[in-house]
Amino acid sequence: MNTLFNNARILKTDHESHDFSIIKGSLAVEGDTIKYVGEVPGDFVADKTIDCDGNLLIPGFKNAHTHTAMTFLRSFADDTTLQDWLYNQVFPREGQLVEDDIYWLDILGIMEYLTSGMTSNFDMYFFPPKNAKASVDCGFRTVQTSGLNNFGGSIEIVEENYHIVNEMSDLSKFIIGFHAEYTTSMELMEGIAKLASKYKSPCFMHNAETKLEVDECKERWGKTPTQLTDELGMYEYGGGGYHCVWMEEEDFSIFKKRGMYAVTNPGSNTKLASGIAPIKRYLDEGINLAVGTDGPASNNCLDMFREMFLMTGLAKLREMDPAVVPANEVLYAATAGGAHAMSLPECDSIEVGKKADIIMIDMMQPNMQPENNIVKNIVYSGSKSNVSMTMVNGKILYEKGKFNIGFDPKEVYAKANAIIGRMK
Amino acid sequence: MNTLFNNARILKTDHESHDFSIIKGSLAVEGDTIKYVGEVPGDFVADKTIDCDGNLLIPGFKNAHTHTAMTFLRSFADDTTLQDWLYNQVFPREGQLVEDDIYWLDILGIMEYLTSGMTSNFDMYFFPPKNAKASVDCGFRTVQTSGLNNFGGSIEIVEENYHIVNEMSDLSKFIIGFHAEYTTSMELMEGIAKLASKYKSPCFMHNAETKLEVDECKERWGKTPTQLTDELGMYEYGGGGYHCVWMEEEDFSIFKKRGMYAVTNPGSNTKLASGIAPIKRYLDEGINLAVGTDGPASNNCLDMFREMFLMTGLAKLREMDPAVVPANEVLYAATAGGAHAMSLPECDSIEVGKKADIIMIDMMQPNMQPENNIVKNIVYSGSKSNVSMTMVNGKILYEKGKFNIGFDPKEVYAKANAIIGRMK
Repeated sequence: MNTLFNNARILKTDHESHDFSIIKGSLAVEGDTIKYVGEVPGDFVADKTIDCDGNLLIPGFKNAHTHTAMTFLRSFADDTTLQDWLYNQVFPREGQLVEDDIYWLDILGIMEYLTSGMTSNFDMYFFPPKNAKASVDCGFRTVQTSGLNNFGGSIEIVEENYHIVNEMSDLSKFIIGFHAEYTTSMELMEGIAKLASKYKSPCFMHNAETKLEVDECKERWGKTPTQLTDELGMYEYGGGGYHCVWMEEEDFSIFKKRGMYAVTNPGSNTKLASGIAPIKRYLDEGINLAVGTDGPASNNCLDMFREMFLMTGLAKLREMDPAVVPANEVLYAATAGGAHAMSLPECDSIEVGKKADIIMIDMMQPNMQPENNIVKNIVYSGSKSNVSMTMVNGKILYEKGKFNIGFDPKEVYAKANAIIGRMK
Repeated sequence: MNTLFNNARILKTDHESHDFSIIKGSLAVEGDTIKYVGEVPGDFVADKTIDCDGNLLIPGFKNAHTHTAMTFLRSFADDTTLQDWLYNQVFPREGQLVEDDIYWLDILGIMEYLTSGMTSNFDMYFFPPKNAKASVDCGFRTVQTSGLNNFGGSIEIVEENYHIVNEMSDLSKFIIGFHAEYTTSMELMEGIAKLASKYKSPCFMHNAETKLEVDECKERWGKTPTQLTDELGMYEYGGGGYHCVWMEEEDFSIFKKRGMYAVTNPGSNTKLASGIAPIKRYLDEGINLAVGTDGPASNNCLDMFREMFLMTGLAKLREMDPAVVPANEVLYAATAGGAHAMSLPECDSIEVGKKADIIMIDMMQPNMQPENNIVKNIVYSGSKSNVSMTMVNGKILYEKGKFNIGFDPKEVYAKANAIIGRMK
């Protein structure tokens, strides 16, 4: 399937400056790959030609941390304490999930990703092969990691999932990881470090999401989660942490030295009152950044536009300085930064030879006008209502409000309502 | 023009508890008024019948503080200090605006309100009669106040505008107000207090937006802006403040005693690093709340869904407690609270005899599923992409992405680009 976009504006990424420029022209996709950008030869044969009418093609957003299948708990128990939310509401219901539930709840989440222009996710949840299967069946790109902890799983299962998911499809990948220091024994963490080393894989975990988590880790081990896991040898091949809110001096050094990614989750950190991540400091240090929604039970929505506004807005509030964390750094983190964190360098920007993970931004809506600065319009004023097309791996999965993933939305909604209905 | 909505779910407001319930049925609009809710007699004659397919009708959102025509400065100068933004970027360009500019820039803003389900705005900007004319021409409901300060206007002009705008249309209203203590002389403030008294009008101003503003007011007058203006007699007939971030003990007492409204602007306070308003305290004290976007140069978008998430999310961060400021209080402030602040009690909820300022929420989108709690879905997961219809005063002004306001969107966008283009 070849697709030709004519009369487009195209966002080009400068990986040195983390800034962007916009060119006018055409873009051609051959199979799963971007074949031409700007000028397209007249003899390019397209199965589908789209007149963009001056609208903007940009790289798809990468949701660099989520628990997709938690869609069933959206709006189930909010406005309550973290303790009550986790122990009385979330855990007892997660325990009732079966593999088939995960499949349908994932599809609901993937639909929401597509509406918000996200072309891949970095997912941590039960049954990674089932999550990957749901993604692949939809045509959506996924990177799975393990949520291994003391309450479920084993090093052997993580290793088995590593092979199953990596071999399943071009659209699915597996990176070594585990849930978090505060839920995982030293024995398991040592096993994870060995796996990361064996497969030369980056390694990820929830890291410094709450102050309590860091304080308790220091009580237990005399060091922060970053220091502890680094000393275990987890980051020999890079990796990073999800959340990374409560960082200490040495943590920044380790992230920098190892080329690690701080995956920020500002929506979740806000709604769960976890705190505000030190984004300005990460930028000052040159530490890599990516952005994720976290799961839909804690956010509650899967909307990269919300996350982008919050990433810079909360940093401005934290520093009491409206000049910090400029829009281009936010858009870079939400696109290329995420791709790099997820070991998807082939999906990081719109260039010849890269995978065709592309979205179209409808500029002909009032929130995108006037066009004083299009990158700022996207980051500060953009909305999922501006996403008029989402293409993953060369296939259009969402266009003008309609899904092309092989499932009937109403059936997916009915399944999700039935799953949580069973648990009430 | 009579409109009949069938097969709807309808959000009912409980003004005592600030909570909501949902009924199923039909809703009939006769002219500008809600005629039937739930059951509609078979002999009701409709010019237009809409099958809602189970989607949700709710009262329109009220944007209780904005400077609509600032659309021209969207994304013009962000990521800079407040001082540079205001004195080098905003003021010199506002000085170049002529009345015709205001008209077109307002229409652009009104279009954006409609996409986000806002059915009225509480506007403060230059040339209130021109702002009101733009609204009325679109069929949009507006409440204007004065932005009087030392650099423009006079008490006489405010009084003249009071009459012009109040007499212009059923859709336009004028309430006494001025810019802020830090920009306005004592003589002018005394004149405003007299006008409020003469016309038995509530009175509004920017209040306690930044810490500096409050500190300087206390240096000048030995009291906070709230205390000073209350002592001038401005709130004999109620009123309130925009922003209300940096409040002191006695300020809360005055707001409570006078039945005043704290109009919160969380998006603007975030992006301009002004601080986080004490929303939990307002709720604990029983102080009235409303929500506004502030102007599009400071936010930068006019999206009530963003404001709602931020209103509760930032409060959770401020208090470090995810249980504070529940979703129903947020939705109440964004609908009925705003209506009451704007002296529009006839637009506060869906009830027989109220004005037909109604929007339809498309529930058949992934971010609204499953339906564990629909009010929470709206507040935490909702997006302007869920707004499938916006009706103001009985007339549908926006439906499924199309505007019905008598202007061609592309012409409006071209005008806005030309206006700022002239100033570059």
